[in-house]
Amino acid sequence: MEAIQVGLLGLGTVGSGVVKIIENHQDKLMHQVGCPVKVKKILVQDLNKKRDVDVDPAQLTTNADDILQDPDIDVVIEVMGGIEETRNYLLKALSEKKHVVTANKDLMAVYGSELLTAASANGCDLFYEASVAGGIPILRSLVDGLASDRITKMMGIVNGTTNYILTKMSKHGRAYEEVLKEAQELGYAEADPASDVEGLDAARKMAILATLGFSMKIDLDDVKVEGITRITEEDIQYGKQLGYTMKLIGIAHREGEKVEVSVQPTLLSDSHPLASVNDEYNAVYVYGEAVGETMFYGPGAGSLPTATAVVSDLVGVMKNMRLGVNGANAVTPQYQKKLKGPDEIYSKFFLRLHVKDEVGVFANITSIFSEHSVSFEKILQMPLKENGLAEIVLVTHQASLQDYEDILVKLRDLNAVHEIKSSYRVEGSARI
Amino acid sequence: MEAIQVGLLGLGTVGSGVVKIIENHQDKLMHQVGCPVKVKKILVQDLNKKRDVDVDPAQLTTNADDILQDPDIDVVIEVMGGIEETRNYLLKALSEKKHVVTANKDLMAVYGSELLTAASANGCDLFYEASVAGGIPILRSLVDGLASDRITKMMGIVNGTTNYILTKMSKHGRAYEEVLKEAQELGYAEADPASDVEGLDAARKMAILATLGFSMKIDLDDVKVEGITRITEEDIQYGKQLGYTMKLIGIAHREGEKVEVSVQPTLLSDSHPLASVNDEYNAVYVYGEAVGETMFYGPGAGSLPTATAVVSDLVGVMKNMRLGVNGANAVTPQYQKKLKGPDEIYSKFFLRLHVKDEVGVFANITSIFSEHSVSFEKILQMPLKENGLAEIVLVTHQASLQDYEDILVKLRDLNAVHEIKSSYRVEGSARI
Repeated sequence: MEAIQVGLLGLGTVGSGVVKIIENHQDKLMHQVGCPVKVKKILVQDLNKKRDVDVDPAQLTTNADDILQDPDIDVVIEVMGGIEETRNYLLKALSEKKHVVTANKDLMAVYGSELLTAASANGCDLFYEASVAGGIPILRSLVDGLASDRITKMMGIVNGTTNYILTKMSKHGRAYEEVLKEAQELGYAEADPASDVEGLDAARKMAILATLGFSMKIDLDDVKVEGITRITEEDIQYGKQLGYTMKLIGIAHREGEKVEVSVQPTLLSDSHPLASVNDEYNAVYVYGEAVGETMFYGPGAGSLPTATAVVSDLVGVMKNMRLGVNGANAVTPQYQKKLKGPDEIYSKFFLRLHVKDEVGVFANITSIFSEHSVSFEKILQMPLKENGLAEIVLVTHQASLQDYEDILVKLRDLNAVHEIKSSYRVEGSARI
Repeated sequence: MEAIQVGLLGLGTVGSGVVKIIENHQDKLMHQVGCPVKVKKILVQDLNKKRDVDVDPAQLTTNADDILQDPDIDVVIEVMGGIEETRNYLLKALSEKKHVVTANKDLMAVYGSELLTAASANGCDLFYEASVAGGIPILRSLVDGLASDRITKMMGIVNGTTNYILTKMSKHGRAYEEVLKEAQELGYAEADPASDVEGLDAARKMAILATLGFSMKIDLDDVKVEGITRITEEDIQYGKQLGYTMKLIGIAHREGEKVEVSVQPTLLSDSHPLASVNDEYNAVYVYGEAVGETMFYGPGAGSLPTATAVVSDLVGVMKNMRLGVNGANAVTPQYQKKLKGPDEIYSKFFLRLHVKDEVGVFANITSIFSEHSVSFEKILQMPLKENGLAEIVLVTHQASLQDYEDILVKLRDLNAVHEIKSSYRVEGSARI
């Protein structure tokens, strides 16, 4: 039986992992697919670099066309990263009727729609499980496992770096900068951590998840993003006292025909299963109308989990090739995008204020909330050592984002409010 | 486009759920599969029984052959339960080239192998996702998502009734009989709870999981089973003190070519993600060589989650029909079954003893452990109010089951040992 031939774009840690898995699991792959698989060519930047995987130098090339225009290559696996150049490579591969597997969330968040359309037009598969939460087969579950359900909400811890940092801050009371530095030394965070700590990486993944889960084209620009850089130890400690754990949570919520997608630091009720997802682990919590609540948990990144997801996608492509049904089950968005306005987004909120410690101040503040019909679930007030100030920490009941933002404007205008120290979304029990 | 026609065996809560989902989700199903789906006939016991779902009386029949021999029916969905008669129905359906979807774990645990072979011989699909942990797409994940990985261990909370009972006992210090009674009143436990509380239901699911995950035919008889009926509040409380949560855990563990599969009350380290799976929820924790650790969490039963899983399987069958590839990806076990002996099964153990409170007794006991090179992780000893007795609670380090059982025999023979009160397997941190 003729081997299926694969071209690899990139030979970093994930690419090396893919090569190793294909080598070490030939028997299992053969059993599943019914024919051998062979990595024919690998695009690299430097032919002479020392690598931690055995490859024949003749397999390496610095010219992408050696892969994209080789008629013997059936499948292109993209693990090189990058966006613009990579997009051109993959469009070329698809136009040459090659199937594509990619682990590139940045690319899929920006050009996913265009690439999926090109794949469909060319009768090719384009699989990208590894682009979201590397080790968790969440995309396949959304498409297949929950196929007959209507997904109403997804909440995800989809960035390992920030979850690692927040876990260390919460459990050991350590400061953000210190833990970030440690994470960089351990290789959990990049030298330039912006994409992780500013929430962009998580936002890209939420855009991909929402697009699939709601069958609606959600762009990165549709995702409201806030990172973890302004979270303080005080906020985490207050959260703890009130029964909440601080997490960077991606939320995709559909009500009726409208959706909201956001990534933001969130105080999550301790009883919610996501609250105990720690360290570099990821998890996606899915609410379906029929199935109820399910959670998918696993390593979010790492070269081996990501490489495993890539090879699982490759197996999917190869099975389809053997069956002659590639491109047949590309999922195109079914619904028009309709985003909720701030008056349609509801949640609880945590607010921490420094106010003048004077008679009537508390009443002034709470009356602003009452004007917007927002009531409180929890309130703490305590004097501060600073001159004549008190600290108020409160958690509201459900309120619209519009009302809450209006309240914040009015509070800022209030003479008695010295400073708004912090403000977070609060997500309650597991049940919506 | 011609509709795909379905015959339903059974119209209880799950069957009714399937009918409702198919009705309510015609648009979504049409979008996914490309043709309509219609329930043509439904096998019931009583034509005149009042039902909570609208069905045309003409759809109902009490004669299975109206479904099994109707050439217009493409897919048979079995939600009637039972084993022997049901097996005959499904073998007949398969021999008539009808695809089969079943939610019946009892049947699959006993006749799964025979039915899968019959399906393969007839070029038919036989899907059974709903038979394990209703709402969690775990089987599909094992087959597809982790396709290129080697699964080494699965630990599962796969019975909702017992997890509900143990959660209530642990969190509220309540007695087994009292919680069981409540669970029966709430409909979480059957009037005859034996299959749940004796661990048989969990054992059936572990046999199915191990068969798929290890690609090795594991029969129900291969699963060592112990239920929750002898768990006492004291054991749960001691566990808590030592940092463990009591759970009924199914374990399927592969080392080299050999496997063990068991279901037993287990003291699970509080830090293990399974320890916080509470109430009627189920979860399966999967260890893969490449991917590391993943967990699938969700409702284990319930008519809607189960019906959702059934319809997801139906969608899979229908996609395959449209593509003309049914029966092509039936997974047949790849490896010969090799079960570990007691000398090859390793774990930690929790042991609670009542002993005579005399000089030298403690040394006598520990020397028996030393003879078998078994050392201790934790030991508590305290006097009892009863005449001259002391209680010893200990947790061993890793030991073989063989050594541990030999030790128990010797302890029973020891004059100073008044009674062995309880003994449990202990599973440590998330990392194996």
